Amino acid sequence: MTDVDMLIDGEAVSQVPATDRGLHYGDGLFETIAVLDGQPVLWPEHHARLVDGCARLGLPAPAADILEAEIGALSRGHARAVVKVVVTRGSGGRGYAPPPEPVPMRLVARYPWPEYPTEWLEQGVRVRTCRTRLGCNPALAGIKHLNRLEHVLARAEWDDPDIAEGLMCDSAGNVIEGTMSNVFCVHGGVLRTPQLSRCGVAGIMRAQLLQFAEAAGVVVEQTDLSLAAIAGADEVLLCNSLIGAWRVRELDGRSLAPGPVAQALAERLRARWPL
Amino acid sequence: MTDVDMLIDGEAVSQVPATDRGLHYGDGLFETIAVLDGQPVLWPEHHARLVDGCARLGLPAPAADILEAEIGALSRGHARAVVKVVVTRGSGGRGYAPPPEPVPMRLVARYPWPEYPTEWLEQGVRVRTCRTRLGCNPALAGIKHLNRLEHVLARAEWDDPDIAEGLMCDSAGNVIEGTMSNVFCVHGGVLRTPQLSRCGVAGIMRAQLLQFAEAAGVVVEQTDLSLAAIAGADEVLLCNSLIGAWRVRELDGRSLAPGPVAQALAERLRARWPL
Repeated sequence: MTDVDMLIDGEAVSQVPATDRGLHYGDGLFETIAVLDGQPVLWPEHHARLVDGCARLGLPAPAADILEAEIGALSRGHARAVVKVVVTRGSGGRGYAPPPEPVPMRLVARYPWPEYPTEWLEQGVRVRTCRTRLGCNPALAGIKHLNRLEHVLARAEWDDPDIAEGLMCDSAGNVIEGTMSNVFCVHGGVLRTPQLSRCGVAGIMRAQLLQFAEAAGVVVEQTDLSLAAIAGADEVLLCNSLIGAWRVRELDGRSLAPGPVAQALAERLRARWPL
Repeated sequence: MTDVDMLIDGEAVSQVPATDRGLHYGDGLFETIAVLDGQPVLWPEHHARLVDGCARLGLPAPAADILEAEIGALSRGHARAVVKVVVTRGSGGRGYAPPPEPVPMRLVARYPWPEYPTEWLEQGVRVRTCRTRLGCNPALAGIKHLNRLEHVLARAEWDDPDIAEGLMCDSAGNVIEGTMSNVFCVHGGVLRTPQLSRCGVAGIMRAQLLQFAEAAGVVVEQTDLSLAAIAGADEVLLCNSLIGAWRVRELDGRSLAPGPVAQALAERLRARWPL
């Protein structure tokens, strides 16, 4: 077991150049990965999203094998860990103009596993809706970029530790995601989740749930969903790479009954990865 | 004259903690300030905008006298310099949730004066329109926060060194600003500039130009302006804290004739500050 919890461009340091474009512009991407016994869960999917994000932002993606080795080195000896990978366009360029040949900065950091109350997993979570909206920009939709002020402001709206998550809407009032999760709901057996063409993060666990549902013969729709549509659903579910899936048992103070679809998906997911 | 070109929390270092929320979320603000003979131009205005931005993001603002001393120390011996001030929410907090009592990080850095071609000032500039749109979010509109990926992507759209600036529209097609400047246009003697309630940066020089124009008896409007409205204007003008004001002589390949209003404002501004 090593004491090092961070590698920057492969070196065991804990500072980055103050000229980094990640700091100045949020010019980069990140991945938050569950690592179980040294194995990054859904690693090919995380790396693929990172590669896609790098292509969208026009910066070279770090090689999978380098990242894999660094994640392994940092998480060795930890039964469960969170590893965050940050890739920025590095330093340089004049103002906003990116350097013609960027030298990306790569940060891999291990964090303690988040200890959420066990009843959140077993009995579901209480959720609120946030006032802070998500701006729409198809150029940035889907990817996990470093411009996250909207999420910070939304998460700052509550400090009640019994509220697990806050839902965020876009400016038109469509529910897009939670501050740290994707959202699903069930109407009459049909599983629906917000389509993310204008904003939102296309979560790795979201894609898994969609696959699981389709494999189980559940009808799935990626569509626009109003807050009323979510609030009036038979079941609501949140997911991300660390929590797996949580059933929503209360939304803005209103109780939601447990239901079979969310339950089955959450169990299927838990059977696959003991998050 | 000192060799130090950067102070981080008052210390002459060039790295920041890799845990800084500015890097991870763009959770902070910045100011770009012209410093002439050690005097930051429009300093009270820059500091006021920074204080406003800190209030909007819910983080403590650095004291004016500390920043002033640091700007002075860095720019001593330089006839003209650019100083950038970055303030972030510092490190800490769990995920997006801000720490209850943030310890902000303060970065003050001196950069060389940008050497734009002199004919840009004298004869005007060539400007294009960018495909990259600005997402709308009133919660972030006006302030100079660190979520600047849209501006990076817009600025990456061209590398012709003869194009001085690119105009950015919001998702509805209203022109909002240039990638690094605010925009004004003149229609029949009326000076118009985009209103910035949904997105865009409320520039310090923009406010000065508005004041100058009003003092000179020019009718001024802050309003929604389509690209067609800008393209069909009698005069178009760009401004920021470093360039002062540039007349636009060509927009997307179409020539714009010089005109009296832009000319008078640019000269008034140049007489006040020899940028």
